[in-house]
Amino acid sequence: MTDTTPDEVDRIARAAKDAFAATVRTDDRTRAAWLRRTADAIDADAAALIEVAARETALPADPRLVGELARTTAQLRLFATVVEEGSYLEATVDHPDPSATPPIPDLRRVLRPLGPVGVFAASNFPFAFSVAGGDTASALAVGCPVVVKAHPGHPETSRRMASVVVRALAEAGAPEGVFALTEGFEAGLALVDHPVIRAVGFTGSVRGGRALLDRVAARPEPIPFYGELGSLNPVVVTPGADAARGAALAEGLAGSFQLGAGQFCTKPGVVFVPAGSAVEAALPAHLLTPPRLLTPAIQDGFAAGIERVSAVPGVEVVATGEAGDGPAPLVAATDVATLREHAHALLEEVFGPFTLLVRYASPEELLAAIAALPGGLTATVHREEGEDVAALVSHLEEISGRVLFSGWPTGVAVSWAQHHGGPWPATNTQFTSVGATAVRRFQRPVAYQDAPESLLPPALRESNPLGIPRRVDGALVVPR
Amino acid sequence: MTDTTPDEVDRIARAAKDAFAATVRTDDRTRAAWLRRTADAIDADAAALIEVAARETALPADPRLVGELARTTAQLRLFATVVEEGSYLEATVDHPDPSATPPIPDLRRVLRPLGPVGVFAASNFPFAFSVAGGDTASALAVGCPVVVKAHPGHPETSRRMASVVVRALAEAGAPEGVFALTEGFEAGLALVDHPVIRAVGFTGSVRGGRALLDRVAARPEPIPFYGELGSLNPVVVTPGADAARGAALAEGLAGSFQLGAGQFCTKPGVVFVPAGSAVEAALPAHLLTPPRLLTPAIQDGFAAGIERVSAVPGVEVVATGEAGDGPAPLVAATDVATLREHAHALLEEVFGPFTLLVRYASPEELLAAIAALPGGLTATVHREEGEDVAALVSHLEEISGRVLFSGWPTGVAVSWAQHHGGPWPATNTQFTSVGATAVRRFQRPVAYQDAPESLLPPALRESNPLGIPRRVDGALVVPR
Repeated sequence: MTDTTPDEVDRIARAAKDAFAATVRTDDRTRAAWLRRTADAIDADAAALIEVAARETALPADPRLVGELARTTAQLRLFATVVEEGSYLEATVDHPDPSATPPIPDLRRVLRPLGPVGVFAASNFPFAFSVAGGDTASALAVGCPVVVKAHPGHPETSRRMASVVVRALAEAGAPEGVFALTEGFEAGLALVDHPVIRAVGFTGSVRGGRALLDRVAARPEPIPFYGELGSLNPVVVTPGADAARGAALAEGLAGSFQLGAGQFCTKPGVVFVPAGSAVEAALPAHLLTPPRLLTPAIQDGFAAGIERVSAVPGVEVVATGEAGDGPAPLVAATDVATLREHAHALLEEVFGPFTLLVRYASPEELLAAIAALPGGLTATVHREEGEDVAALVSHLEEISGRVLFSGWPTGVAVSWAQHHGGPWPATNTQFTSVGATAVRRFQRPVAYQDAPESLLPPALRESNPLGIPRRVDGALVVPR
Repeated sequence: MTDTTPDEVDRIARAAKDAFAATVRTDDRTRAAWLRRTADAIDADAAALIEVAARETALPADPRLVGELARTTAQLRLFATVVEEGSYLEATVDHPDPSATPPIPDLRRVLRPLGPVGVFAASNFPFAFSVAGGDTASALAVGCPVVVKAHPGHPETSRRMASVVVRALAEAGAPEGVFALTEGFEAGLALVDHPVIRAVGFTGSVRGGRALLDRVAARPEPIPFYGELGSLNPVVVTPGADAARGAALAEGLAGSFQLGAGQFCTKPGVVFVPAGSAVEAALPAHLLTPPRLLTPAIQDGFAAGIERVSAVPGVEVVATGEAGDGPAPLVAATDVATLREHAHALLEEVFGPFTLLVRYASPEELLAAIAALPGGLTATVHREEGEDVAALVSHLEEISGRVLFSGWPTGVAVSWAQHHGGPWPATNTQFTSVGATAVRRFQRPVAYQDAPESLLPPALRESNPLGIPRRVDGALVVPR
């Protein structure tokens, strides 16, 4: 038993608050150096980390965990670049304009760190959305201390990673208490309730996220809760695409929905195909024998989800793979009428190696089916040149955070333009948990009115000593 | 009785959703034209609007309501400029980078409108935070239809303004249903519960805001709630400033805390002065006879607040003005020990013409008192050159959305750098309800992956046809 007691959580949270008194004043280069040092330390310990994680999660070491670790250190380095570039501060300078109504004084706005952040690690990415994952990296980047609640699915990985991070940050000169790990269900509750915690990041199920969201909403002082929750990730294959490359699409789909044994929040969970499609014909040949799922709870949830879907009249099993240590992968199929009639049973995410084909007979029927979908992280269209998908796309962009044309939604790039979020139940806010703008979750604006130069943060001083992009009197100014 | 029934709210909300299908595709110049037409129509009806508002609110027509109306049309025109400038879209283009981990595809991100927005009008600004106020202007600017819940304190003003707005928008070619007014308590509840409403803006009391926030949090699909609530707006007068210009500061303070009969969310409600200050000595000479307060409930709340504060042992009345149609303005004073001991009674906003002087004996005592303050919209420092206020400022910026040096917090400029928000209970989010960035509340990101040029929003097309600032491969690019 290694659960962190509520008293220990209290001590850790207060230490994070003490650390914040220092981190709030650090300059961007200093924090960038912390992140790079942490990335280097993780790279140096990669072999051991991957070995422990592979044992705990049953995810294959190579390429899966090797790639995920590389992505994790790439994230840390991206956020170092983001804070050094400086736009993330949204520095804005208005010089006085006495003729305005009301008159405009000297007014300067910048984004500052929120304070200590609680991070709930995910089960399915033991590195990239866990102890040193995107939430931790983006919070540290802007100067927010981080208290992680480990996922119980990979405790040894979490502890090893935490010790790498703690040591790297200490060696880089970061203040004590700027990062800490907690474990256990009660510790998580104590963390979201703690008065010094100023925001919570969470990656996990809709049910777990909703429970924490409600708990955060009941605090005397509300704080932002950033949940990255469930998603169906609809895929549409047009008649033209099916005719031109149905077999190849089936292979791609099989790879995507079975990747990591289907345990991705971006797994394509519902696929719209023309009736009698080549995709459906070719798919059964590509089913794999997956490893065991991440946790017993996920294993049970998968079995229950399969049962729920299969029990719907009008749903048939198209193909099953072979069960190994994990459950047999499964592809089911239905028609649009059944989907709409049983939307409640069929349009809830099944976490694991399952996808549902929905056969449509006409473009109108396809649009009617799409209209029944809940919000999600992604939506994908496979089409041929010349097919008119404008109406389809306009609906998909209303219910999705990322719209893909060709390709598959698994494998989320970490870059400036990425958005990993979407309408409920994908997330509960308008923010992303992946990509450069993830830092904005942990910042708040402060404006300074008629401040003497010496009391302004460097980002706002008249001479722009940091040399960062700023908005001055309404116009963006980018230093050369 | 003119309450909007829940059925009518449903019809209005559905019409807003229908309008959204059109507004989501409008270009920025079109929406800017709607806003400018609306501003012009309000200006044209200014005399009548001001006459009705003066009668309903008891606020003086000139300069108060004349200025507020000018500010309201200035807000509409600022948001027109903001959307034409284009940065508000945060357009971001990443070209493919196959060498990244994971590989980066062609990825393009833009902010899109959230959907229909509910706006709860405030009592104290019948124009600027009401029917055609900042929430309405910023939501319409980005393409979100607006359903306003009128404040019962100025129903005729609300109706007249709504008819001006509806006519102006129709004349400008905006779709039917893009703007509507509702009235009544039950209508407000129906509005925040309605499934098509994608965000709620609210300006009002902490109690009312907290109740609505809890109601929004209980929706099956959570949506953002933007509450602009209560604030104490602490002011610190240093010994140097008191010695140099105590009498002038007293006059300025008197003007600020009695402006609009003290019914501003930025009213200075607690003022830290050196023991035996010139400010305290000079203040009694400047008390006014205020008009009646905005509503009977506010009148009652003021009386209760005064009673609560006066009942605290160690609080003395320094000065009272004369009661006219409204209550007598009141200045009380206490010391730091009493403030800390009775923080609960003394540090809750009293809405109306009241302020509390807190006499401090030393810089250390001042800092200890500041540490007891809750979050707020503003904090103000009056100091002299050479006085070291760094520690003070560093605490104030942690609990405030705007830090002023000299000047008074009332009179919130509408500009690019403005921030009108702050830690709870000032607001419950990291957003502003005044200034250019207020639009961000009503937008959500969507990323497009490997999209054909013809299916991309114009803001993201390779040639940048809108000519807006964009981030391309990590670097900000501002067209000349």
